[in-house]
Amino acid sequence: MEVKVRQRPITALFDPASVAVVGASEDPRKWGNWLAVGALRGEAHRPAYLVNHRAGTILGRRAYATLGDLPEAPELVVIAVPGPAIAPTVDAALDAGARALVVISAGAGGEERDAHDAALARRVRDAGAVLLGPNCLGVLDSGHRLELVPNPLPAGAIGLISQSGNLALELGLMAAPDGLGFSRFASLGNQADLDATDLIDAFAAHDATEVIAVYIEDFRDGRAFARAAARAVGAGTPVIALAIDGSGAGSRAVQSHTGALASDGAAIDAAFAAAGVQRVRTPRELVDAAQALLRAPAARGRRVAVLGDGGGHVSIAAAVAAQAGLEVPELSEVAMAPLRETLPAAAGVSNPIDLAGAAEQDVHVFDRISLDLLGSGEIDALLVTGYFGGYAEYGPEAAADELRTAELLGAAVTATGRPLVTQTMYPHGPAAQALRGSGVPVYESVEQAAGALARLADRGTWEPETIAELPPAEPPAAGDGYLAARALLAGAGIRFVAHHEVTGVEEAVQAALQMGYPVVLKALGETHKSDAGGVVLNIGNEAQLRAAYAQVHAALAPERCTVERMAPLTDGIELLIGARWDPRFGPVALAGSGGLYAEILRDTALRLAPVTEPEAEAMLRALRIAPLLIGARRRPPLDLAAAAAALAALSRVAAAHPELAELEINPLLVTRSEAIALDARFIRAPHNAEPQERESAVHLHP
Amino acid sequence: MEVKVRQRPITALFDPASVAVVGASEDPRKWGNWLAVGALRGEAHRPAYLVNHRAGTILGRRAYATLGDLPEAPELVVIAVPGPAIAPTVDAALDAGARALVVISAGAGGEERDAHDAALARRVRDAGAVLLGPNCLGVLDSGHRLELVPNPLPAGAIGLISQSGNLALELGLMAAPDGLGFSRFASLGNQADLDATDLIDAFAAHDATEVIAVYIEDFRDGRAFARAAARAVGAGTPVIALAIDGSGAGSRAVQSHTGALASDGAAIDAAFAAAGVQRVRTPRELVDAAQALLRAPAARGRRVAVLGDGGGHVSIAAAVAAQAGLEVPELSEVAMAPLRETLPAAAGVSNPIDLAGAAEQDVHVFDRISLDLLGSGEIDALLVTGYFGGYAEYGPEAAADELRTAELLGAAVTATGRPLVTQTMYPHGPAAQALRGSGVPVYESVEQAAGALARLADRGTWEPETIAELPPAEPPAAGDGYLAARALLAGAGIRFVAHHEVTGVEEAVQAALQMGYPVVLKALGETHKSDAGGVVLNIGNEAQLRAAYAQVHAALAPERCTVERMAPLTDGIELLIGARWDPRFGPVALAGSGGLYAEILRDTALRLAPVTEPEAEAMLRALRIAPLLIGARRRPPLDLAAAAAALAALSRVAAAHPELAELEINPLLVTRSEAIALDARFIRAPHNAEPQERESAVHLHP
Repeated sequence: MEVKVRQRPITALFDPASVAVVGASEDPRKWGNWLAVGALRGEAHRPAYLVNHRAGTILGRRAYATLGDLPEAPELVVIAVPGPAIAPTVDAALDAGARALVVISAGAGGEERDAHDAALARRVRDAGAVLLGPNCLGVLDSGHRLELVPNPLPAGAIGLISQSGNLALELGLMAAPDGLGFSRFASLGNQADLDATDLIDAFAAHDATEVIAVYIEDFRDGRAFARAAARAVGAGTPVIALAIDGSGAGSRAVQSHTGALASDGAAIDAAFAAAGVQRVRTPRELVDAAQALLRAPAARGRRVAVLGDGGGHVSIAAAVAAQAGLEVPELSEVAMAPLRETLPAAAGVSNPIDLAGAAEQDVHVFDRISLDLLGSGEIDALLVTGYFGGYAEYGPEAAADELRTAELLGAAVTATGRPLVTQTMYPHGPAAQALRGSGVPVYESVEQAAGALARLADRGTWEPETIAELPPAEPPAAGDGYLAARALLAGAGIRFVAHHEVTGVEEAVQAALQMGYPVVLKALGETHKSDAGGVVLNIGNEAQLRAAYAQVHAALAPERCTVERMAPLTDGIELLIGARWDPRFGPVALAGSGGLYAEILRDTALRLAPVTEPEAEAMLRALRIAPLLIGARRRPPLDLAAAAAALAALSRVAAAHPELAELEINPLLVTRSEAIALDARFIRAPHNAEPQERESAVHLHP
Repeated sequence: MEVKVRQRPITALFDPASVAVVGASEDPRKWGNWLAVGALRGEAHRPAYLVNHRAGTILGRRAYATLGDLPEAPELVVIAVPGPAIAPTVDAALDAGARALVVISAGAGGEERDAHDAALARRVRDAGAVLLGPNCLGVLDSGHRLELVPNPLPAGAIGLISQSGNLALELGLMAAPDGLGFSRFASLGNQADLDATDLIDAFAAHDATEVIAVYIEDFRDGRAFARAAARAVGAGTPVIALAIDGSGAGSRAVQSHTGALASDGAAIDAAFAAAGVQRVRTPRELVDAAQALLRAPAARGRRVAVLGDGGGHVSIAAAVAAQAGLEVPELSEVAMAPLRETLPAAAGVSNPIDLAGAAEQDVHVFDRISLDLLGSGEIDALLVTGYFGGYAEYGPEAAADELRTAELLGAAVTATGRPLVTQTMYPHGPAAQALRGSGVPVYESVEQAAGALARLADRGTWEPETIAELPPAEPPAAGDGYLAARALLAGAGIRFVAHHEVTGVEEAVQAALQMGYPVVLKALGETHKSDAGGVVLNIGNEAQLRAAYAQVHAALAPERCTVERMAPLTDGIELLIGARWDPRFGPVALAGSGGLYAEILRDTALRLAPVTEPEAEAMLRALRIAPLLIGARRRPPLDLAAAAAALAALSRVAAAHPELAELEINPLLVTRSEAIALDARFIRAPHNAEPQERESAVHLHP
């Protein structure tokens, strides 16, 4: 697939032949000063021109009054001028031959913002250039000595794309002590022209960027974002993203179970899972994940051995690893035999492995045992925890031995292709540094180390999912309420329980007689019918039906009701299947435990819709209640294929009906022989979408 | 309640009038050296005598050949001699008048250990003394300059009781940068005489100890431990404990749902919840919790405001706070009014609160707004996140302002009695230090800060539970299987569904005729009957009954069956109620979602048994499915009182039957008008209990 951004001059943004800073200043409290200082740091690599309408001298260099005065066309122009001056300055830059622009200043605010930004982007694109911002804090390419940012950031292999300036600063402060830093940094700002998707593509093609990290608030086209991330991940560059569950969640009026369960955050999760994006929640998690993905190979599975000197440490680590979703399997006799030979009798050798003091005699037990374990075929990764890194305290000889052991631990990783992650009490000592240098991630706390292993397993076990194109929209669904939803979904081939629409009690009695008792009586017109007393189940005879009819009428006075076959609920499992139209990611399909328990259990699986039948089946198999569906523990297997077919059909309907915000069947009764819908509803999308808020404050200092 | 330990000479352990180190050594690789060095550091406070059978001179002091040679009775004797010499040395110490002994050396190993330790304890107790260890790494009281430990540990207000030496070392390394340290440290070792319970009582009575932290592997009498912790917490000293879920969990043969759900770890949780112990999973969590509990007042609820300069930071913090179980409520117009006046238009004022750059102009917006928020009555605590701590980068004046602001933030806490916790990018800068000094905990990551606020809310909202005494044991339950369990529980007043025991199909048909269809057929004799095809539900007529009988016989050939009324499952909710006899904490009662979903949902609440009916009701109300029981969303309320009565009755039966490892009713059908048991079972305890493993390796260096 050809990527549009590669046809645009994005290299001019990261490795320009020349740079001009417009709004350059001598005043160390101003942006124009910080950027000018940054531009001059790269002078050995490219000319840096300072532009200020007052001309004169700035930072010992000539200041040009206008871009037109420069001796050559500036390939990259950074603009730090007051808001109203942005548009003319952009024009002047394009006239002067600029290929890339970075607009620091915020342009228009409030309601005018989008129009202002769109106009800027149009000009830039028409001129064949690219623009970063406005309202961004700059761009950095450490390999090319381009440092157009207000704060120094450590150099390294992380490509950072961020919609928050403070966060970039914090990530730099956290990354540096771990020996990590940035290959590139692009501050997204308003994404008037270049957006996160473009930058992911550009970073994925950049050799010095080994991991892409994204902080994003505004996804724009979420599927395009996911596809770009999937391309990067598929081509070998992991993508880590910190994204906050939409602030719209609180205000969005949720009307169905699906709406409540397929939250904004769950839609992000679904898109990230499809793309192989590693989602993080905090800056600390981002840096920890980056360290793991940069230093260690992926783990092919979740089986972990835990190794340390001291029963307390290894027990804690094993428990934390299990909590992080890893397995700590008992080792076989074959794998334990060499441990038994090497270690004292008091040692624990079955996993977790407690050296029981053996390393005090010979610290090389660590590398010998690690090589054995990583090569055993019984585990996918190794967690070394506790005191390692502190043996140097025993004296210079011990220190040298420990350093050599650290290198050999790295060699064991190289030899086996399996990752080793360490937690040490001495994360800043020489052995820890040697570990980092040998390809072994080092963490201060065991929860960080276990989390890192989970990341490596996520990477190694990720299976790409199709990020489906949306089908053409079908004509909007007709009508409203249960019968309209039923008609729409039945039209897509989903089986519903037999029903008769009735307008009076005598018609109801006739209908029941015709279909046979027991029956269900449903009032039409309400959305949460069962809560409102509008549904009576398990009506066994005419007298009960008449009583139920009277009761429903007293409660709701519906114009019409349906009489339906009572389905054999105890013969099967009730599922919820549904879809929600997410404003960023489009339709998202959901499977979950259904019936009464739906929202209480929150046992759900989500994917971007539409889904195929095999994808639908994978969703159902991912539920906690899957054992009941597939027939574990000698229970008969239920008709999983029929349930998957219904879910796939519903997801296709949802994807073709953007006018429906929510669409669901609850319950879908799955028995041994069928999957049958017992109720359905849809919710139309409101006509206006709420505007998203964006961060504006960034902290800047010289 | 009088505490036994106060009647014993435990002060001799922490503030002895004199100390003797037996096995003192000149060799810096030996325990006897490290302890002698430690003892001599306290010489200004008390005489320290070094004892070595070779006499001579050690560390420039006279070495005495025997304890009998000392010029006075040594109040505390520390013993670091080879294992076989322990017993005679203990005798010599007692003869010399010692009141407290610390035995570093491991005594006997393997099977002889318990007998060896019991003999030691007996001698010591008979002499009216106390003993710490054996197999421990010493004792520390920083206020009394007692440092009988191999490594220096930072001084502070945490009283540490640990069963792992390395862990104490790690906690010290982690605590020091946060300005935290230890008032006392006692290494538990084998707990031959003094155990964790004794030490908790002693630390709770120690003024300089403001928080008790425990790392424990072997609880001994878990209820006594919980009672001691509850006394400490009740008297104002928080207790933090790091305990690993029992290693027995893997090997313990679990036979019922209750056994699977009421795991070793869940029993620890139940005991800790009753006692108000703050459970942690890792050393990092322990230190973070200690910082919060030491520096900040408790929060009276979970409502938190989030304040920072930058939308990214506050959004992340709000999401992380919600994930930590806190609420981030929208502020009222009244509370927002002063914020609107103070802050620029772009600021977010509804919570989270984004200063949007206002602090760059005047950093005191932090303290003014914090005071407003903490005093608003709308929140219970405040989380300040992000850049605060970094304004000093703007210059000396900004630095001074920031320091003053830090003090005023502490003053706002004092004035309002509500906690403020900070996360900063600059956790080791001057403002961060000033915050710590002013009573404001400081963390590097926002997840740590949010976790700390959750700890403060846990502390402030804890309601003490009775840690019940066990009733006298009743005669062991007769028989086995469903009918035996049913008889035992029905005898305690629990209602069961009507049943007939039958031995053939004709009897079954007769029974069904008598009770009326629909009925259930159950094979007797299997434990997981429904999985094995031994239960057929919803049999509607004689033909179906005959078919079901044939099917059950073909599958299991049971000697006997029961025919039971088919309960109206769709009219109610199926619960699981049960109890497990935990080897450390005794009987633990469990309530959970029942029926098919029991183990899948893992929706459970546990308490130490027996529980009263109000306590049982509180357990049921804590379930995720509680809304279905109490009648939320216009559903009719079910008979919660009857369900609670059944759970309380079951818990009393369990507490009176130590021979039963597991006892459960599943399902207990709760309808609008009753709670009725549909099945029951018990599992007898095995006759042998597995011995617990203990950590032995500790890392020691001079």
